[in-house]
Amino acid sequence: MTKLLITGRSGRMGQTLIEAGNENPDTEVTSTHDSGDDLTAAFQDVNAAIDFTVHHFTGAVLDAAMASNTPLVIGTTGHTDEEREAIVEASKSLPIVFAPNYSVGVNTLFYLTRKAAQILGNDRFDIEVTEMHHRHKIDAPSGTARRLLEILNEETGTSYKDDIAHGRVGNIGARPSKEIGMHTLRGGDVVGDHTVMFAADGERVELTHKASSRMTFASGAVRAAVWLQDQPAGLYDMQDVLGLK
Amino acid sequence: MTKLLITGRSGRMGQTLIEAGNENPDTEVTSTHDSGDDLTAAFQDVNAAIDFTVHHFTGAVLDAAMASNTPLVIGTTGHTDEEREAIVEASKSLPIVFAPNYSVGVNTLFYLTRKAAQILGNDRFDIEVTEMHHRHKIDAPSGTARRLLEILNEETGTSYKDDIAHGRVGNIGARPSKEIGMHTLRGGDVVGDHTVMFAADGERVELTHKASSRMTFASGAVRAAVWLQDQPAGLYDMQDVLGLK
Amino acid sequence: MTKLLITGRSGRMGQTLIEAGNENPDTEVTSTHDSGDDLTAAFQDVNAAIDFTVHHFTGAVLDAAMASNTPLVIGTTGHTDEEREAIVEASKSLPIVFAPNYSVGVNTLFYLTRKAAQILGNDRFDIEVTEMHHRHKIDAPSGTARRLLEILNEETGTSYKDDIAHGRVGNIGARPSKEIGMHTLRGGDVVGDHTVMFAADGERVELTHKASSRMTFASGAVRAAVWLQDQPAGLYDMQDVLGLK
Amino acid sequence: MTKLLITGRSGRMGQTLIEAGNENPDTEVTSTHDSGDDLTAAFQDVNAAIDFTVHHFTGAVLDAAMASNTPLVIGTTGHTDEEREAIVEASKSLPIVFAPNYSVGVNTLFYLTRKAAQILGNDRFDIEVTEMHHRHKIDAPSGTARRLLEILNEETGTSYKDDIAHGRVGNIGARPSKEIGMHTLRGGDVVGDHTVMFAADGERVELTHKASSRMTFASGAVRAAVWLQDQPAGLYDMQDVLGLK
Repeated sequence: MTKLLITGRSGRMGQTLIEAGNENPDTEVTSTHDSGDDLTAAFQDVNAAIDFTVHHFTGAVLDAAMASNTPLVIGTTGHTDEEREAIVEASKSLPIVFAPNYSVGVNTLFYLTRKAAQILGNDRFDIEVTEMHHRHKIDAPSGTARRLLEILNEETGTSYKDDIAHGRVGNIGARPSKEIGMHTLRGGDVVGDHTVMFAADGERVELTHKASSRMTFASGAVRAAVWLQDQPAGLYDMQDVLGLK
Repeated sequence: MTKLLITGRSGRMGQTLIEAGNENPDTEVTSTHDSGDDLTAAFQDVNAAIDFTVHHFTGAVLDAAMASNTPLVIGTTGHTDEEREAIVEASKSLPIVFAPNYSVGVNTLFYLTRKAAQILGNDRFDIEVTEMHHRHKIDAPSGTARRLLEILNEETGTSYKDDIAHGRVGNIGARPSKEIGMHTLRGGDVVGDHTVMFAADGERVELTHKASSRMTFASGAVRAAVWLQDQPAGLYDMQDVLGLK
Repeated sequence: MTKLLITGRSGRMGQTLIEAGNENPDTEVTSTHDSGDDLTAAFQDVNAAIDFTVHHFTGAVLDAAMASNTPLVIGTTGHTDEEREAIVEASKSLPIVFAPNYSVGVNTLFYLTRKAAQILGNDRFDIEVTEMHHRHKIDAPSGTARRLLEILNEETGTSYKDDIAHGRVGNIGARPSKEIGMHTLRGGDVVGDHTVMFAADGERVELTHKASSRMTFASGAVRAAVWLQDQPAGLYDMQDVLGLK
Repeated sequence: MTKLLITGRSGRMGQTLIEAGNENPDTEVTSTHDSGDDLTAAFQDVNAAIDFTVHHFTGAVLDAAMASNTPLVIGTTGHTDEEREAIVEASKSLPIVFAPNYSVGVNTLFYLTRKAAQILGNDRFDIEVTEMHHRHKIDAPSGTARRLLEILNEETGTSYKDDIAHGRVGNIGARPSKEIGMHTLRGGDVVGDHTVMFAADGERVELTHKASSRMTFASGAVRAAVWLQDQPAGLYDMQDVLGLK
C-alpha cells in the first residue's frame, strides 16, 4: 500500500486527488497539506507526494521532498525558467514525474498522434487540430493542444512559430501543405475535447479525446505516484509511466 | 414535364446540372447553351432556365429570359451591386430564384439554425460555428458559413463586425457571452462540412450538414426550376422553394 | 419567489434538484421529503412539487398534491397503464407536467427533429438514430431515443414495431427506404448523447444533443415548476413549458 | 517506371484503377484486360498486375501470374476456402499482396486501433465500433469493421462469436466489460466511415476513418504494386506495404 501526501487539501483539485488516492486499491492518503500547515511535517512517513497547487509553490515542495527523500508528482504548469530549472536539478537526486496532462487517454492521444504523423506525414495529408474547453478558460490554445502541435512539429519538420494557422479569415489563398490549422473553441462547461485530423484526397483520419471529469487527471496522477516509488532518481513524464516510449 | 435550358454546357457544373435535369422524373433538359451559341435561340420553347456560369453573364441571361418570359434560377455568386440591382429589377416582371446554396440539406440547416437560436438564445448557450472545405478553397469562411452567421446575428442581436471571433490565440480571457466563434478548417478534398454548436453548462446541441457531392446543389436547382414555373413574378430564394418561411 | 417541495431528499437526483431549486433566482426549496416522512405535511405551504423518485410512488404523490391543490412536476418513467391513467385523471383538476426528459436542449432536439423530418422526409433521406449512455444503464434504447423514434414515426408514417432496425448483422440486403436504424452504444460514464441523422445521395444532416451533467435535467424541472403555477389544470409536457408547440 | 496490368477494364473499379495507375508518377498502365480477352497475352511485359474483379476469377489470374512470373495485387474478397488456399500456394513462388482494404488511412486505423487496445485494454475502457456505408451495401458489418473487431479480439482476449453485441434492445442489463458493441449504419451514398471508441469513467478516446472516394483504394493498390516488385515470393498485406508491422 502506497502512502500518499496530497497538497492543496481545501482546493477543488486537491479534493479530487484525495478522493482518487482513497479509491485506488493500491494507495492510501495518509497525509494532506494546506496553506499555513507545516510542510516538513506533512512529508513524514509517506511513499510519494502529489502537488497540483500552483507553480510558485513548487520550490518549497521540492525542498521538503528532497529533505525527506520522497518521490514527487508535479501537476502544476506555467513555471518560470528558474522554477523549471529547480525541478531538473532536484530530479538528479529524486524520482520526479512532471507532465502537462495526467490522463491515460490524453497520453494515448499523444502517442497515437506521433505514430499517425509518422505514417501519414503532411504531404498528401493536411493536418488540422481542434480543441474545446469551458467558457472560463483564459488561454488559447490549451496546454494539451500545444503539446499535440509540438509532436506534430517534431514529426513533420514544421515549427510552432511559422506553420500554425490560428484561425482563417478573408482571402487566404490555397492551403500551404505544411500549414497546421489550430482551432480553439470555447463554450459551456466542456472539460476538454481535442481532435487531430489528417485530411487527404479521398479520406480522413481523426483522433479524438474527450474528458468528462477532472477525476481522470487525478487518478492518472495517483497511478504515476505508485509507479514512481520503484524508479531511480530522474525526470519522467506520463509517457514513461504508461510505458509509451 | 418541365422543359429546361441549362447554360455552361461544357463546364463541370453545367454537366452536373444536365445530369440532374435528366434524372428528375418531372424535368427534361431540352436546350443547352455554351459560349459562342446564340442565347436567344437557346431560350425558345423551354419552361425554365438554370444558370450557374459566372456573375458577369447574368445580365445577358436576364435579357434573354425577359424577352422570352422564361422563369430563371440563378446559381452564380459574387455579383457587383449593379448586377445585383439588375436581378431585382428583372424580378418585377419575371419569377426568379436567387440563392447562395441550392442543397435541400443546407437550407434545412439554415432553417433549423434560426429555430435553435430562437429557442436557446446566447445567454445560457455559447454559439460556435465550424466549417471545413478542400485545400483549394481560397476564401474564408465559406459563403454558407457567412449565411449561418447572418442568421445567428439576426436572432441574437449580435453583429458580424463586432461579435465574431475568427480564431483565438494567447491570453484571450473568459469568453464574452455574445461572442460567436467561427472556425475555418481546410484540407483534402472535403466538399463542405458545416456545424453550428450551442454549448451550455451541462449540455450541447449541435446541428451539422455534410456535403459529399456537387450533385446535391444541381438537383436542388432543378427542384427550384420546377417550383418556379407556377409562381408569379418576384425574387425568391431556396427557403421559398422548400416552404421554409 | 416560488416555494418548492422536492421528494427523494437523500437520493442523488433529489440532491441535484434541491441544488437546482436553490440556485434558480425565482425559486426556493422550502420543503423536502424522504421515505418515512409524512407526505401530507411536506405538501403544506408550497407553490409546486417535483418528484423524480420512482413510478410506484406517483399515486401517493398525486393524492397529496390534489389534497393540497399543489401543481406537480413528474420526472419518473416506466409507469404501468394504471399509474399512467391516475396521472391523466389527476390532471383534470390539477396542473401537471409529465415529460420523459426535462433538459432544454433535449426538448429542442425533439422540436428540431420533427421539423427536419417534415422537411426532409424518408424518401430521398435515410434516417438513423444513435444514442450512448454509461455502462450501468440497463434498458435499450433510452427513453429519450424512444421519444425521438415516436416523433420520426409520426412524421414519416412508419411504426416502432415494423420499421425500426435495432442493429444489423449478416446478409441484410439493400436498406428499405422506410427503415429507421437505431443504435444503442454503452460505455464509460457517458451521461447521454443522442444523434438523429438524415442521409441522402450527396449530403447528410445531423442533429445532436450531448448531456454532460444531471443538473441540466434538474434545472429544467425547476423551470417547469415555475411555469406550472400560472397554468390551469391540465397535462403538460416540456414542449409546453418551452413554448415549442 | 512500373508497367501495370489492370483487369476488369470496363468496370467502375477497373476504370478507377487505370486512372490511379496513370496518375502515379512511378507507374504506367501498359496493359488492361476485360472478359473475353486473352489473359496470358495481357500478362506479357508488365511488372505487376492488379485484380479487383471477382473472387472466382482469382484462380485464372494466379495461373497467368505464375506462368509469367508477375507480382500480383489481389483486391477481391469473399473467397472460398479453396480459392484462399490457391492464393497461399501461389505465394510460395510469387510475391502477392492480398488485403481487405488498400487505403493508407484505413490501414493506419488498423495499426492505431491495435496500439490503442494494447495501451487502454478493455477493463477500465469499454470498446464500441460504428461503421456507416451507403444504402446499397448488402452485408453487415463491413469487411473493414470485421477486421477492426479481429484486431480488438486479438488484443483483448475476446472472441467474435461470444463478445460482439450487434445492436442492443430491451432489458439488456449492465454492460459486460468484455463486450464489444458493433453498430452498422446504412444510408445515402456514404463511401465508408469507421469509428473505434474506448470509453472509461471520465474520458473517451475515438479513432475515426472517413472515405470519400474509391480512388483512395485504387491509389493504395497501385502503391502496393510498386512496392511488391522488389519483394521476394510471399503473402503480404497492406500493413507490410506501409511498413506498419
